[in-house]
Amino acid sequence: MRNFIAFNPVRLHFGKKVVNDLGSSAASLGKKALLVYGGGSVLRNGSYKDTLVQLKTQGIAVTEYNGIKPNPRVEDVNEAAGIGRNEEVDIVVAVGGGSVIDSAKIITICIAEGCDAWKVMTGKYNPASALPLIAVLTIAATGTEMNAVAVLQNSETKEKIGYHNVLIYPVHSFLDPSYTLSVPADYTAYGVVDLVAHSLEAWFGEGEATLSDRFVISVIKEALEFGPELMRDTGNYELRANIMWAATNALNNLTMYGRESGDWGVHALGHVLSFLYDTAHGATLSIIYPAWMKVLKERAGDRILQLGKELFGTSDVDQTIEAMESFFKLLGSPLKCQEVGIETSRKEEILSLMNRDQAGGMNFKLSDKEREELLEYMF
Amino acid sequence: MRNFIAFNPVRLHFGKKVVNDLGSSAASLGKKALLVYGGGSVLRNGSYKDTLVQLKTQGIAVTEYNGIKPNPRVEDVNEAAGIGRNEEVDIVVAVGGGSVIDSAKIITICIAEGCDAWKVMTGKYNPASALPLIAVLTIAATGTEMNAVAVLQNSETKEKIGYHNVLIYPVHSFLDPSYTLSVPADYTAYGVVDLVAHSLEAWFGEGEATLSDRFVISVIKEALEFGPELMRDTGNYELRANIMWAATNALNNLTMYGRESGDWGVHALGHVLSFLYDTAHGATLSIIYPAWMKVLKERAGDRILQLGKELFGTSDVDQTIEAMESFFKLLGSPLKCQEVGIETSRKEEILSLMNRDQAGGMNFKLSDKEREELLEYMF
Repeated sequence: MRNFIAFNPVRLHFGKKVVNDLGSSAASLGKKALLVYGGGSVLRNGSYKDTLVQLKTQGIAVTEYNGIKPNPRVEDVNEAAGIGRNEEVDIVVAVGGGSVIDSAKIITICIAEGCDAWKVMTGKYNPASALPLIAVLTIAATGTEMNAVAVLQNSETKEKIGYHNVLIYPVHSFLDPSYTLSVPADYTAYGVVDLVAHSLEAWFGEGEATLSDRFVISVIKEALEFGPELMRDTGNYELRANIMWAATNALNNLTMYGRESGDWGVHALGHVLSFLYDTAHGATLSIIYPAWMKVLKERAGDRILQLGKELFGTSDVDQTIEAMESFFKLLGSPLKCQEVGIETSRKEEILSLMNRDQAGGMNFKLSDKEREELLEYMF
Repeated sequence: MRNFIAFNPVRLHFGKKVVNDLGSSAASLGKKALLVYGGGSVLRNGSYKDTLVQLKTQGIAVTEYNGIKPNPRVEDVNEAAGIGRNEEVDIVVAVGGGSVIDSAKIITICIAEGCDAWKVMTGKYNPASALPLIAVLTIAATGTEMNAVAVLQNSETKEKIGYHNVLIYPVHSFLDPSYTLSVPADYTAYGVVDLVAHSLEAWFGEGEATLSDRFVISVIKEALEFGPELMRDTGNYELRANIMWAATNALNNLTMYGRESGDWGVHALGHVLSFLYDTAHGATLSIIYPAWMKVLKERAGDRILQLGKELFGTSDVDQTIEAMESFFKLLGSPLKCQEVGIETSRKEEILSLMNRDQAGGMNFKLSDKEREELLEYMF
């Protein structure tokens, strides 16, 4: 086991009506809030209104920014931060999914420091402060509600990258599974895929950490048990709750303690598809993870085998990969690019960008040849 | 799943030589430290010296209190707090095991508030503040290094009770498994038993929480896999590290999220033995847990069965209890009172105190008749 620091300061409120405590939490942190959200779902599921009522009731002044898009863009973050600085807000409240909360995390830095978001993301600017962040999560997927990570994309540089800084842990996160009851089937499935993929990125990371391994298996088992049930019964609170809590634990540091690193190769490869075709993040993962395991069948064979044994009771690498594919298929998440409208004619374009970025993992680096092989499995 | 707040603010430094970061951590919190420790083991394993050097190097004034005993007493806590108040210390540093750290937790309150320790423990005094606490753990067992719980005993009232308050989370905890290499075999075994028992108290608690259940199983599996290995090879750092991290996770809230409560009946019953005969806490647990399961064979049958299936691959309640007994025996921890020198003539005395306190769990309350039955299995 490697040395590590176990630390996660987020105060995460989980369950029915927990947003009722948001107002008092916000009032202890600030007086002027920038309320960040995205598309229309938060207007329909009640989360936007509930949050606004909470802030207003406490006499907190609210400035709104609702321009965040799925696969969030750095220019929107800069715009929102500019508005927040003008209004001299002292707290940021994010209502939405991973894109909104990730954007809000960088917004908290850019308001506090008056800096450029992409310089923060690329490490060219090293921030010393951030405004406090409150997150209201409305879709189970990324785990951003309980970690210090944000992912943004930049259209100019054609990059989608992740950023880590302890400054961007939300102070409070509110997770009411009720808000996720209306998430449509495809995004429900992508969320389950995402939580499995996050767990796998830890599993395929570097360094032995037995308890963290068992936590990985625990989280994935929740997805295997409750994911398909949820797809048949998307209005079921208990199933939504189980998946939502599993998704948080898939990326709140818990599966990482004692490892040297995660892998994150599949995420890096998937970001290329999201960048080029705005493909939903979860969809890129169900396409690429099985393909990646096929490419890595020899090099990561031992880990794939151990995974198969723990999850599917099989001692065969191919059967493990097939079982994972069957699971993604059962959820209704795509296994091939064509299923999300990416035609085979795009192969070169994808490969070219993947190779430019040397897209691959921290543990399992990929050669150009391996990426070429990967592309074949993706179509 | 019940509503819950997931929160744990401890910054836990884990691994070789992590105490090298203690000085700077302490300097950011205070200038005058009360250094709390107990018997001689911290002098032998290097933890006391390393901590002192760290504090001195940072120019932190140190007042020492080394009177904490195993099964810690409230009078020592009051004495230490009095010294700390006189010296106007602004930080408490605890070096030792559960007894020392639990005592230090209450000391942080009593110094800050000038109150009586037992009034705090019994809830008669409700504190509003506490000094910051730094813990250096030297034995894997209680999980106190990453929770807000303290257990103390009172000779006058003949009670040993637990206390919970978010004020008493350590700010920093330092866990270097190297310090545990010299823990003798019996206390090594008790530590493994303790972490299993903590996991079981969650398992037998009230309310369904599937992921928390899987985390319980994960933690116990670490004990099952590495505990017996460690008993054969007590000087093995990796095994010590695995057990130490498992023990932390057995009682850092992780196994509780989504439940209504844990059970804690076996702990309450065990405290009676510790109080009467100064029996080591872990020893009371390996004696009482199998006995408790025998008494609860019907009422907790489903949960015992599920446990047996997950841990031992059996679908039989009796076999599950036997497997747990075999495991404790393999570790060298006692199964009967006689093994720790408590003779059968003491039965009445024990039963009388257990009945006076109505000792039992929050989920499974016990009748006097059940406690009588329990006593039979304990001898």
